[in-house]
Amino acid sequence: MATRAEQESEERALDLAYDVLQKRCPSRPVLDHLTGRWGTLIMLSLREGPVRFNELRRRVEGISEKMLSQGLQGLERDGFVVREVLSTMPPRVEYHLTELGRDTSDQIKALVAFLESRMPDVEAAQARYDAGTTA
Amino acid sequence: MATRAEQESEERALDLAYDVLQKRCPSRPVLDHLTGRWGTLIMLSLREGPVRFNELRRRVEGISEKMLSQGLQGLERDGFVVREVLSTMPPRVEYHLTELGRDTSDQIKALVAFLESRMPDVEAAQARYDAGTTA
Repeated sequence: MATRAEQESEERALDLAYDVLQKRCPSRPVLDHLTGRWGTLIMLSLREGPVRFNELRRRVEGISEKMLSQGLQGLERDGFVVREVLSTMPPRVEYHLTELGRDTSDQIKALVAFLESRMPDVEAAQARYDAGTTA
Repeated sequence: MATRAEQESEERALDLAYDVLQKRCPSRPVLDHLTGRWGTLIMLSLREGPVRFNELRRRVEGISEKMLSQGLQGLERDGFVVREVLSTMPPRVEYHLTELGRDTSDQIKALVAFLESRMPDVEAAQARYDAGTTA
């Protein structure tokens, strides 16, 4: 059941005609940046405030330097993340979410929190599937 | 330095807590199925009710037969999707969301509807970035 805000949001999207199911919709690559292999985890890790590259790399366990760098660049271009060079000595580089990024990460957080809360059901389903009794 | 008992205890706590930022959390591959290259779009396309493979392939524009097949299998194992063989003549195969799948797709839909509604802001940010004026 959609809330009123969701309905209004969907109506706005319809007016603007953005539809990720359409192959050439410009929203599709943006969705890829947000949800692709690492995007979700980077967006989650930025929720706690400005953070330096190496700290971010520790938070997103298992990510390579290259994937984190590419991921941040894509999210920066889309307007979700700001890369800020602080005029300290030596200069520091920090990353933080824009307002749009925070709003977006709220949606991602809701999805992830929901998934984490339902993981026992998921693991039970996996065990049934692997036992060959998916019914 | 943690003792072995402390480590095991921590691991149990992690198992119970489920945290996608942890490299070995079982929630991470499930998040990948849901959000990876095609998972989001498959989950969205299943919201309208039971659907056959070829119709689903038309809805998710651009997906290959192989990726759709693999995606559906992963989502079925995780307990989000049911593959049902109907005893018609000839037999038909339909896919539909489980209750868990519907609840999960509500979260995905909220994220996607939000993103689609904010795409004008995203495209403005991209234009600024490409012009070299990210400020």
